[in-house]
Amino acid sequence: MKSTERPAAEGILFTDQYQLTMAQLYFRMGLHERHAQFDHFFRHYPDFGLHMAGYCVNAGLEWLLDWMQESRCRDEDIEYLRGQRSASGGKVFGDDFLGWLRKNGNFESITMHAIPEGRVVHPNVPLTIVQGHLAMAQILETSLLNHLNYQTLIATRAARIHESGRGRPLIEFGMRRAHDTGANAGARAALIGGADFTSNVGISHVLGYPPKGTHAHSMVQAFMALGEGELGAFRAYAEVYPDDCLLLVDTINTLESGIPNAIKVFEELKKRGHRPAGIRLDSGDLAYLAVQSAKMLNEAGFSDTKIVISNELDELVIWQIITQIQEEAPRCGMDADHIIDRLIYGVGTRLITSQGHSALGGVYKLVAIRHGDDWVPAIKVSETPEKTINPGFKSIRRIYNGRNKATADLICREGEEPEKMDPIVLRHPIERSKSRILVRQDISGTEPLLVEIMRGGKLVYELPSIDDMRKVRSGDMERLDSGVKRLVNPHLYHVSLTEKLWELKQQLISSTLGE
Amino acid sequence: MKSTERPAAEGILFTDQYQLTMAQLYFRMGLHERHAQFDHFFRHYPDFGLHMAGYCVNAGLEWLLDWMQESRCRDEDIEYLRGQRSASGGKVFGDDFLGWLRKNGNFESITMHAIPEGRVVHPNVPLTIVQGHLAMAQILETSLLNHLNYQTLIATRAARIHESGRGRPLIEFGMRRAHDTGANAGARAALIGGADFTSNVGISHVLGYPPKGTHAHSMVQAFMALGEGELGAFRAYAEVYPDDCLLLVDTINTLESGIPNAIKVFEELKKRGHRPAGIRLDSGDLAYLAVQSAKMLNEAGFSDTKIVISNELDELVIWQIITQIQEEAPRCGMDADHIIDRLIYGVGTRLITSQGHSALGGVYKLVAIRHGDDWVPAIKVSETPEKTINPGFKSIRRIYNGRNKATADLICREGEEPEKMDPIVLRHPIERSKSRILVRQDISGTEPLLVEIMRGGKLVYELPSIDDMRKVRSGDMERLDSGVKRLVNPHLYHVSLTEKLWELKQQLISSTLGE
Repeated sequence: MKSTERPAAEGILFTDQYQLTMAQLYFRMGLHERHAQFDHFFRHYPDFGLHMAGYCVNAGLEWLLDWMQESRCRDEDIEYLRGQRSASGGKVFGDDFLGWLRKNGNFESITMHAIPEGRVVHPNVPLTIVQGHLAMAQILETSLLNHLNYQTLIATRAARIHESGRGRPLIEFGMRRAHDTGANAGARAALIGGADFTSNVGISHVLGYPPKGTHAHSMVQAFMALGEGELGAFRAYAEVYPDDCLLLVDTINTLESGIPNAIKVFEELKKRGHRPAGIRLDSGDLAYLAVQSAKMLNEAGFSDTKIVISNELDELVIWQIITQIQEEAPRCGMDADHIIDRLIYGVGTRLITSQGHSALGGVYKLVAIRHGDDWVPAIKVSETPEKTINPGFKSIRRIYNGRNKATADLICREGEEPEKMDPIVLRHPIERSKSRILVRQDISGTEPLLVEIMRGGKLVYELPSIDDMRKVRSGDMERLDSGVKRLVNPHLYHVSLTEKLWELKQQLISSTLGE
Repeated sequence: MKSTERPAAEGILFTDQYQLTMAQLYFRMGLHERHAQFDHFFRHYPDFGLHMAGYCVNAGLEWLLDWMQESRCRDEDIEYLRGQRSASGGKVFGDDFLGWLRKNGNFESITMHAIPEGRVVHPNVPLTIVQGHLAMAQILETSLLNHLNYQTLIATRAARIHESGRGRPLIEFGMRRAHDTGANAGARAALIGGADFTSNVGISHVLGYPPKGTHAHSMVQAFMALGEGELGAFRAYAEVYPDDCLLLVDTINTLESGIPNAIKVFEELKKRGHRPAGIRLDSGDLAYLAVQSAKMLNEAGFSDTKIVISNELDELVIWQIITQIQEEAPRCGMDADHIIDRLIYGVGTRLITSQGHSALGGVYKLVAIRHGDDWVPAIKVSETPEKTINPGFKSIRRIYNGRNKATADLICREGEEPEKMDPIVLRHPIERSKSRILVRQDISGTEPLLVEIMRGGKLVYELPSIDDMRKVRSGDMERLDSGVKRLVNPHLYHVSLTEKLWELKQQLISSTLGE
């Protein structure tokens, strides 16, 4: 796309057509400036088939806010809409609505509460609550979901991979397989969720992180074609980057060529007073090669060099590699932990596209609309009870147990104070017969999760740095039960309703069904 | 991201760090302006687990060209690189290299041949051949793969879904689940591959397609909350859009509420001289509901209204829905084809993120480098023989059999003319013992696939319209054997080497292995 086309493609028209046709309908019916509330939440954790998430890491809010603050209807957008034709050849959008949209096609009416980026979050809990004029709150839907669904998906995947890798450095490598410029949002989300760095230069610049990268096979091939061989390539690299000399050793044969050549060059570097950085393995049996490479490097006196591994890694592959190293290293007279502790993971495709579950199904649902002085809860009675939306205003409390682990997220009606309840009754969101009772002495604390972000279109929230988000994520991860963090078959975290919210929901379902 | 940050994130620094560190190394070694050739190709069709592709549809080239023509090193980019520090605290990039990059950090040295967008393509065939100065051809890698991998993936998925839906209209609906602004590239690729429209307003504007969309559940809910019910919502919609009245009928209960209310409103519209457009089904058993809805609509005299179906559709689900309609319709006294022929498919998540296989593994490999007056083939001898790159220059011919179906793509050494060969020997790219012989009388034609796109950084190719690309795709699809187009277990299309290319490859492998 040409950069001159981006304002049309990425501005206020970065939305679905039906948001605009609905907005016009609301305008014609005099409903467009009615106050309405929409909740954003997801219904299921990402499920990768062989393994699945038991938590998500929230991300994407700041970029959504950037979009909301910059996007407004330009003359060109209005003229484009004016040119749209219906099946009969008439105008889709009338001049009356377009006149209103030209003036009001922005998010100045919006008040937003949200759970901050980096926080661990769970299904059916509102992550974002939007209140504002019905027409613009509706138009916001597509962009809001687009921004929040993807970054939350990737932050979650990064957290899983980071946990699986025992917290060893994780570098996001996936730009070439990412979905177009989504690469940048993905790299940002990966940093929030658990990646330590990314190879993506542009986004590293924007976010203030140093990008990481050394060389590819092509460099070795170029030297080979010119008759200098792998050793010549490694020597050149060491000459140009003596203090960051990390060599990719699998272009010809890892153990017979790559490692011996790397050791030669490391010895030369050492003599010149530099400390070699390490090697990268990008093909073959990575666990076996890591053990054998470590053995050769140790014997040559380079036992502190790093071993970067890459090639279609994800949380399951990393788990398997660590397990295999634990089994194989002792057989080779090696200390497995010493090998694992020098690993660095380069993770590409499976992180940036969340291979296996490539979209988080976050939704944005109308929950209440202003009628006179009252807020009227809106509900969609779906054939599937779990899809029935929790109505009206609400607040969220995370409840911590005696071990200071998060034990449940409780969705409350506005004004309810679980802090003052004893016991707290947690109703299962769907099943009538299921509830759980927590007495005060089993609770170490309760914490509200939603924060006011935007009031009347103005930001009233101090945007945290990526580093702060990482700290928040790391704190929340520590307070998650290890059962919930399991890669396979995770323990189910409780998301519950207060009794009052449960009762309201039942009343509304009955009255909508005309019972 | 703020729009002021986009030039940094999406310009020349939209690349991996190692491209820049390699470029500096080439500069220091005096190799940066050596002419080099890189081939772009993919190794495997997308494999969705239960089903897989037997072909791909090429896409993304024009947006890559836009990026190449607009991206160059700005002062800000250079200053950012100048600020990068190595482990020892020294500068990663020296002033010498940055001076060169400031002047030459663009793609004016690049000559490119490529297979046009919309063409059906296969593994291991070079889709893009890049020749130019080693440093800049290397820096190009990340962005080239990013642009071409994703759009080819989505165009392919769209083609499969379009085929599965018997060519009935397909609307791309996935913006809210797409990977950030990748939504726009995805919608474009979907249009090339087989979608007829998208709900994405911005990209429709840019590409000159009318966006499609009607209303969501929220509109019905808003009217319900205000006491007007589903019927009130439908009446309002019909009033505002009398000639595009397509109603979403599953907010309460499709057959008991949605369809009866839609029929009431359609009757009112008809009296006012308008022709109702149809209904949309977005939940439940779509095949069953399509049959029952069609029955009710027919009985009410609306047998020509469309039935849009949506909700996690993909090629397999559509196949199943059609099969189920074929089985169930006759039992209800209905003509299955008459129902299927009024279906329109709204496909979201599984198309725009290619759920099940969310990244095409396209690669960009150094194949030759200039040494004096000669081009020296470069080769990476991987442990996996299929990963060994086809060396040097080449051209591609598609060979059509007596039925005018594509029967093989033949990779030739430069200058070889398969048109003049009789018979044509097709060597299997890996297995020594496998070859196939085609005599002249079995061949209806051969066609070169690569086109010169860019010469010395200048576009020498007239960019086709999306409509033209769609025609190209549709022509190629017609000339694919139906076995290759099968959703499950497709017949393997032949990609072969000429004898001369096969021999060159063997020689190079032997000499690299030192045999």
